[in-house]
Amino acid sequence: MKPTQMSTSAIDRFDFFTIAFDILISIVGSIIVNRLIPILKEKFIKAQLWGHDLNKRNSKEVKIAESQGVLAAGIFLVLMFIMIAVVFSEHLHPASVFPHKKFVEYLAALLSICCMVLLGFADDVLDLRWSVKLLLPLIASLPLLLVYFANYHSTTIILPKPVRPYLGQQWNLGILYYVYMSMVAVFCTNAINILAGVNGLEVGQSIVIAISILIFNLVELQGVCWEEHLFSLYFMIPFVACTFPILIKNWCPAEIFVGDTLCYFAGMTFAVVGIIGHFSKTMLLFFIPQIINFLLSVPQLFHFIPCPRHRLPRLDPELNKLNPSEVEFKKSDLKLLGWLMLRFFSMTKFIRYREYTNNDGERFISTTNFTIINTVLCWFGPLHEETLSRILILIQIVLGSLLTFFIRYYLVKFFYDS
Amino acid sequence: MKPTQMSTSAIDRFDFFTIAFDILISIVGSIIVNRLIPILKEKFIKAQLWGHDLNKRNSKEVKIAESQGVLAAGIFLVLMFIMIAVVFSEHLHPASVFPHKKFVEYLAALLSICCMVLLGFADDVLDLRWSVKLLLPLIASLPLLLVYFANYHSTTIILPKPVRPYLGQQWNLGILYYVYMSMVAVFCTNAINILAGVNGLEVGQSIVIAISILIFNLVELQGVCWEEHLFSLYFMIPFVACTFPILIKNWCPAEIFVGDTLCYFAGMTFAVVGIIGHFSKTMLLFFIPQIINFLLSVPQLFHFIPCPRHRLPRLDPELNKLNPSEVEFKKSDLKLLGWLMLRFFSMTKFIRYREYTNNDGERFISTTNFTIINTVLCWFGPLHEETLSRILILIQIVLGSLLTFFIRYYLVKFFYDS
Ligand SMILES: [Mg+2]
Ligand SMILES: [Mg+2]
Repeated sequence: MKPTQMSTSAIDRFDFFTIAFDILISIVGSIIVNRLIPILKEKFIKAQLWGHDLNKRNSKEVKIAESQGVLAAGIFLVLMFIMIAVVFSEHLHPASVFPHKKFVEYLAALLSICCMVLLGFADDVLDLRWSVKLLLPLIASLPLLLVYFANYHSTTIILPKPVRPYLGQQWNLGILYYVYMSMVAVFCTNAINILAGVNGLEVGQSIVIAISILIFNLVELQGVCWEEHLFSLYFMIPFVACTFPILIKNWCPAEIFVGDTLCYFAGMTFAVVGIIGHFSKTMLLFFIPQIINFLLSVPQLFHFIPCPRHRLPRLDPELNKLNPSEVEFKKSDLKLLGWLMLRFFSMTKFIRYREYTNNDGERFISTTNFTIINTVLCWFGPLHEETLSRILILIQIVLGSLLTFFIRYYLVKFFYDS
Repeated sequence: MKPTQMSTSAIDRFDFFTIAFDILISIVGSIIVNRLIPILKEKFIKAQLWGHDLNKRNSKEVKIAESQGVLAAGIFLVLMFIMIAVVFSEHLHPASVFPHKKFVEYLAALLSICCMVLLGFADDVLDLRWSVKLLLPLIASLPLLLVYFANYHSTTIILPKPVRPYLGQQWNLGILYYVYMSMVAVFCTNAINILAGVNGLEVGQSIVIAISILIFNLVELQGVCWEEHLFSLYFMIPFVACTFPILIKNWCPAEIFVGDTLCYFAGMTFAVVGIIGHFSKTMLLFFIPQIINFLLSVPQLFHFIPCPRHRLPRLDPELNKLNPSEVEFKKSDLKLLGWLMLRFFSMTKFIRYREYTNNDGERFISTTNFTIINTVLCWFGPLHEETLSRILILIQIVLGSLLTFFIRYYLVKFFYDS
């Protein structure tokens, strides 16, 4: 079996047929997810998988089914199992050489995704610890790394032009490249989970990212790496289809919640296509808003600044609008580093804080929480929840997708030879 | 890549190392499962994953955590992910030809198992319908069939000697062989779930089957198909290790319940090693007690005879012993086929029934339920639950394992050339 065998031919009629088939079964899958939500609602609530919508006036009265992402993930997996059989059906006559190399990619991808769905659902049901959430994506990404090793070996990265005089043309990262890939998996699975808490936001940003990847794949289908992008396309079409009904029902005012299941499912699916499709750098660019949100969260996540249990926006029941939530603490409790971070993010307008003296004469600080959801409310608030969602999705489209395409197809010329 | 490449060499030092490593991490996994059970108990109960033990006097007072099989399955998957990396580490220098053929087997196996664990856990949490339980193992076995196709093609079975004069030396089953394999997957995943309901029985029979497979693999490791049996061995060692702590705590009087998760997990693991390890016929022989139980259940499962919601034994609170449970119905409701089945299983002593006339002069039938658990109680009852469990496990050892080894290594001579 020659190593170049798979890339010699271009996209052919059979591939178009499989794409058409993928779209077809994705539509069916979408309809099934849409039907399953109302059918299974009572079962979820009976299984204690429900929550109150804290951003609503009548929050305590309505039980909203949680973890509905598991329906999308379950149907997605079924569709992908069928897709594998169809994609490889062209080799289903004994004379054909079965492309094992390509087959391992599909299997490893689905294995990693399936594991994360299981973890996500277990997390929703059992409420697992943080350490588990960081450790398990690492283990779930092992087969991916092995597949990468088996199929590509190469761990060399081409350096951008401006730094070449100092650092050389290219670097062989060796084992570090595998560390980088597992970090991508851990980052992606958790990134969507952190930028969450407003109706429609988790699944909305997932769909924006998925559609961006889909467009990127379609463009690159004409390039030399068409096979990797075809692979990614097969995953993205059913992903968008299966999560779309979830978005509709999770949009403000939410009838359902998506749960950690959806965040892990989406994150791992993106990590998988990014790694196996060889576009993990572009993939990370689609996550710019999540990266900004993560950097902004660092002071609170690592406790340089006190972190309350929830950092969701706060509802003003009279206006029915959301305000940024705040956290208060003694100024004397703040270490130097915390103070610098507070000042930095305040100067860059990401947060708003004020100092005051309480009755005992102690100096206190009250600051908005460090998430871009609160940042948006600082700038434009108070906002109705739906408006807030729209703005955040818009940020995802502009900062995540449009900026990425600008970098990837325009700016890149200044850093790399085409 | 020559198709015979993988079987030319014999078991080598690296393989012994991987077996030793497998045992080592399995022991660690066993300890972790054992630790996790008490740690996570409260979380399961809080998540409404608990039940009452109906066969105990104080059944209504104690909440027993359910679905603990998910802990064994989760740790099993983690161990297997590590094992894959270790098994293929011998090819981790770029000069080595990576054995993609072998790799797809591991990935497809784990993918099918992971899917079934997800389904099992979802079933425990959400209480899914019967049709789903039959359909999903079918879909989850698709990658397995594809791997079988990709790696072996052959769908020819050798016929036993006595029938050869009439039917020929061998048959090419073609597509029917794939139907047979998916039926094996569906049967295995559901078989353990049907023979259940007594403390320690589900996990006990799973461990008996697993240890039998393990012994079979060790014997066959010296044969020509050593590679397939080595594959199976890698799975069985952590399986036994991870489920053993579950058995200890699920043994009468149970501190935990195993849930559907364990039954699906065990069943799919057996199906996977049987199919990919090429010993699905021997595998089915290990399930003789489950097959008998299934055949015995047919009249009630297909409603020839009325089937109550539960067919568990009935507790006699004064003796603290179990009696067979019974179902009563009008004799006139029984169709001819039902009547024949009732007579047949009564004559073969699998059930015990009696007829009586009620006050209105109608003829009624009262029969013990059609499961081998009730059959054992008909023969030896009333029994303490632990004694019942012991007898059923003994049946599994004698009828499932010892008989199989007798058939496989002695009787087979009369039917096949060695
Ligand atoms: Mg092609
Ligand atoms: Mg070897």
